[in-house]
Amino acid sequence: MAEIDRMLEANERWAQQFPGSKPVRPARKVAVVACMDSRIPLFGVLGLDIGDAHVIRNAGGVITEDVIRSLTISQHALGTREVVLVHHTDCGLLATDDITFAETVEKATGRRPPWAARAFTDVDDDVRESMRLVRESPYLLSHEVRGTVYDVATGRLYEVE
Amino acid sequence: MAEIDRMLEANERWAQQFPGSKPVRPARKVAVVACMDSRIPLFGVLGLDIGDAHVIRNAGGVITEDVIRSLTISQHALGTREVVLVHHTDCGLLATDDITFAETVEKATGRRPPWAARAFTDVDDDVRESMRLVRESPYLLSHEVRGTVYDVATGRLYEVE
Repeated sequence: MAEIDRMLEANERWAQQFPGSKPVRPARKVAVVACMDSRIPLFGVLGLDIGDAHVIRNAGGVITEDVIRSLTISQHALGTREVVLVHHTDCGLLATDDITFAETVEKATGRRPPWAARAFTDVDDDVRESMRLVRESPYLLSHEVRGTVYDVATGRLYEVE
Repeated sequence: MAEIDRMLEANERWAQQFPGSKPVRPARKVAVVACMDSRIPLFGVLGLDIGDAHVIRNAGGVITEDVIRSLTISQHALGTREVVLVHHTDCGLLATDDITFAETVEKATGRRPPWAARAFTDVDDDVRESMRLVRESPYLLSHEVRGTVYDVATGRLYEVE
């Protein structure tokens, strides 16, 4: 069975105990930017309820133009005013570098990507760099940002200063 | 209290009942691309367990260069082979258009964004366009993609053909 069919089946059970709708504007006025890693169920990890916060995720949880687009919409159209970053231990982007990854893709597909993978070597430093990029964006209404690292082995989050 | 402090407090409770670590490679070999909307707790909505699937989210759940970067890493470095899209009803991007949004940002910040908001008028069509963009990417190993719309009023997901 394709994974989507399992998901549609599971959704039947979800819909049967669906707790009800909420407004489109996030109640806690916060946007979370996190890595796409499969081991981070953010609602549980951060204690979020349905309707509380926008959730933006990509490889690494890094700040790209697309993340700035999403945060700009989150703030200007939907009223959020805080940004919380969640990077994590044992990230796939710690296990490669941009050149090696581009070569891997080129070898497998015949096409070298024009964009960088955004690999990094120190997760705390990468959180600091991401905080800097949020603070420097000229399109946001609020530059209030704090950053964390999630330990996938313990479930514990720590803040990066 | 800042929202992040509430999240760090909630995380203490999560860590105390943490169910244990999982491998970095997603067990179900699937990457989900969804909208950042605050009303879509994907693990519950799709019946995902920790470690099952990559989760990529942005404003609209649209396919941008950053989503292709994330999917390329997901497939080449971490072994996923299916893509599932989750757009939804009552999306913030249905309530504006790219020009109006750019004017809103310019009026508030003095800077007009060089990127489009990626607003859309029909959610099913937008899912079809996103499927097309995944199928056409030259960097992916698998172009197997299916698309869905989540009804935020009922909790129910339907597939778009």
